[in-house]
Amino acid sequence: MQAWQDYQSQQKDRFLNELLELLRIPSVSARSEHKDDMTKCAEAVKKRLQEAGANRVEIFQTAGHPIVYGEKIIDPEKPVVLVYGHYDVQPPDPLDLWHSGPFEPVIKDGKIFARGSCDDKGQFFMHIKALETMVQTNTLPTNVKFIIEGEEEVGSPNLANFLVEKKDMLKADVILISDTSMLSLQTPSIDVGVRGLSYIEVEVTGPNRDLHSGVYGGAVANPITILAKMIASLHNENNHITIPGFYDDVIEPSEAERAQMAKSPYDEKEYIHDLGVKALWGEKGYTTNERTGIRPTLEVNGIWGGYTGEGAKTVLPSKAFAKISCRLVPNQKSAKMTEVLIKHLESIAPAYVTVKASEHHGGDPYLTPVDSIEYQSAAKAVETTFGKPPIPVRGGGSIPITALFESVLGLKTVFLGFGLDSDNLHSPNEKFDLANFYKGIETIPYFHKYFAEMKG
Amino acid sequence: MQAWQDYQSQQKDRFLNELLELLRIPSVSARSEHKDDMTKCAEAVKKRLQEAGANRVEIFQTAGHPIVYGEKIIDPEKPVVLVYGHYDVQPPDPLDLWHSGPFEPVIKDGKIFARGSCDDKGQFFMHIKALETMVQTNTLPTNVKFIIEGEEEVGSPNLANFLVEKKDMLKADVILISDTSMLSLQTPSIDVGVRGLSYIEVEVTGPNRDLHSGVYGGAVANPITILAKMIASLHNENNHITIPGFYDDVIEPSEAERAQMAKSPYDEKEYIHDLGVKALWGEKGYTTNERTGIRPTLEVNGIWGGYTGEGAKTVLPSKAFAKISCRLVPNQKSAKMTEVLIKHLESIAPAYVTVKASEHHGGDPYLTPVDSIEYQSAAKAVETTFGKPPIPVRGGGSIPITALFESVLGLKTVFLGFGLDSDNLHSPNEKFDLANFYKGIETIPYFHKYFAEMKG
Repeated sequence: MQAWQDYQSQQKDRFLNELLELLRIPSVSARSEHKDDMTKCAEAVKKRLQEAGANRVEIFQTAGHPIVYGEKIIDPEKPVVLVYGHYDVQPPDPLDLWHSGPFEPVIKDGKIFARGSCDDKGQFFMHIKALETMVQTNTLPTNVKFIIEGEEEVGSPNLANFLVEKKDMLKADVILISDTSMLSLQTPSIDVGVRGLSYIEVEVTGPNRDLHSGVYGGAVANPITILAKMIASLHNENNHITIPGFYDDVIEPSEAERAQMAKSPYDEKEYIHDLGVKALWGEKGYTTNERTGIRPTLEVNGIWGGYTGEGAKTVLPSKAFAKISCRLVPNQKSAKMTEVLIKHLESIAPAYVTVKASEHHGGDPYLTPVDSIEYQSAAKAVETTFGKPPIPVRGGGSIPITALFESVLGLKTVFLGFGLDSDNLHSPNEKFDLANFYKGIETIPYFHKYFAEMKG
Repeated sequence: MQAWQDYQSQQKDRFLNELLELLRIPSVSARSEHKDDMTKCAEAVKKRLQEAGANRVEIFQTAGHPIVYGEKIIDPEKPVVLVYGHYDVQPPDPLDLWHSGPFEPVIKDGKIFARGSCDDKGQFFMHIKALETMVQTNTLPTNVKFIIEGEEEVGSPNLANFLVEKKDMLKADVILISDTSMLSLQTPSIDVGVRGLSYIEVEVTGPNRDLHSGVYGGAVANPITILAKMIASLHNENNHITIPGFYDDVIEPSEAERAQMAKSPYDEKEYIHDLGVKALWGEKGYTTNERTGIRPTLEVNGIWGGYTGEGAKTVLPSKAFAKISCRLVPNQKSAKMTEVLIKHLESIAPAYVTVKASEHHGGDPYLTPVDSIEYQSAAKAVETTFGKPPIPVRGGGSIPITALFESVLGLKTVFLGFGLDSDNLHSPNEKFDLANFYKGIETIPYFHKYFAEMKG
């Protein structure tokens, strides 16, 4: 569509500047001191949706951070595409590893560096600019709805309620989400599965106060040592997870599936070089792509206890803590696995200490059927703008709300992601390539076009 | 001595107020932001020494924090007692566990609550007040010198140089230190041995940046998990330390020594209750008193890595860290054990990660001969004011500089400590009982008297 291309190339710089403005708002949902920034960011998203041509835009308060809703209804007979995104971002720590301020976006080597540039401000913003393109060129082929929430990075605790309460308002034919990556601009791909998540926090308590390690060392169990032993026991020598029942619901991939996965482009040397490690690590018997895509994993996301400041302090601490999360694969259930995890950690606690494990948040795994209209529309859109068909891949991350959309709204989700694995999501120096940003805005209208055609 | 008692009971309140003033200075040697407080505290100590009657007081600058020196020379023929103490304190973290500000001393139930109240401001200050008592009553039986340093809590890195350079100035007959505990006011005791220390920090590096645990989890070794496995391997199922060579230089106690130690008052039920633990922990084959007194130990004093803030973050971190220290017993050498420790940690690092271990500080263990004049003087002083002879005990803590005094100045040390094990040294709510403070001031002059008599 020449009209789309013309409009977008005229508005290119404004699109970018508007995104940079959004990136300057430190909308960190996990930190209570950013409460006002969350409101400010929701207001900014509302304004952009209005400007793009939505004919109803509303901010809904929740028990947590607000949800921005928008819609452009052109014809009740036409299919409805419900776009989901999130305006909240991960905390930017550790700050000293950023080359520029996480909320002071800079463009360098054709990339936007800022927290949220890819996850997910840069990506959901492409949908607002795609809507604007179609509205301005009088070519919108579908009805469009938007849910841009502010709690994805803390597990969307208030989204389920919202979906249930606003079920009628949210009626649609498909959920469209850009919050994932593709292999590269040269090798486009579409995620057809995402892993589920169980996330817990463990607190190990030894003595009732911090002790002098010289006076009490040797007589009282050190909660750090006990926690280390507990964590060490969670993987065996083959890096299999040792928690009883952990693999019970995992469906082993067929030889055909494994053969298909093995075709995905993967250069181990390049992968190792990019990560700066001497060797890879993981569950014996599976390839790297299998380990990050179709196998459940357990990672310690954080650990702390005792004296962690400058210098030396000879303390035997009262408490030690860890944040532990598991990625789940289709057929595993988050609620069940969280319980398995908590029970196991409590059961392996030795008598010397008290262990309390509690749930942070979770989500079930999800698969998009590749023979569905929604996947086919996305694949054709990508083929149109990239010149080659995308490879369907199983992503390692989690978008827990997809299972929710299916159970509450009865809708399948398509992951039309334009990020790259090298975008440093959740890490210092998060970035989003300008080329990917513009390619996304170019591709999205085609999804609407093909979805309307196939659905119609 | 009635004159001493009379003077001290008249000046009681002033003694206390002067100590409280000293406790209000946050002289945390490990934190660079307290550099000015360190200078302020050194000046305050200098002033108190002058007021107490010292005829020479000087602040010596070092590469780190200053050392306060003072002396009262009355007769070159008389013996010289060299008092050592430290005006620096441990960091007060975790702050939220203090019932009152660590540097806003309060008196409650006859106890002074403040960081440094016992370790060591309250204790070295007793010596200044004891000097004042003897000077004011014209009864000083010895020459007295003071070294009050500002780097004990960070391993006294500049003390050795000072001792070597000022060897002539520091000529003395004995080192007297109050920086240890006694069993109780009812059961006085004197520490005759302190353990040595090796303290290191370990840094485990996995990937070159923090990663998204969903995208990379399962493919790359998590440095927290690796560090946990390394720490877990340091004690076996009997809680023996597994580091090759760790016990090589340890001299097993004789049956007679063990029998003597077993006579020390110890109520396991009370001990467990005080610590609030369900069970004790430690090296199999040794009693609690042996484990904390005459056996070497290894404790993790701090651990950190990944996301440790509020909420959840799905990160696979680049780095994890731990602070690890060992208590050493006579015949073990700190320098050698630090090397053994560092080499072992580097040797058990798997190929997936890079492990860097570095030294914080250390000190050799030390024993005071109970048949020496110095010990006998101290024991007689305690018997005079407490009404019963002290029990000689082996303390678990470390005062690394004692070995230094012996090697550089050729002097033996007496530990005339008036703290209690329950004083929360290095912990929140550190305290010092007023009764112990005053008992210390009462007892110290007798040490000078008996030492002059026995030595004379």
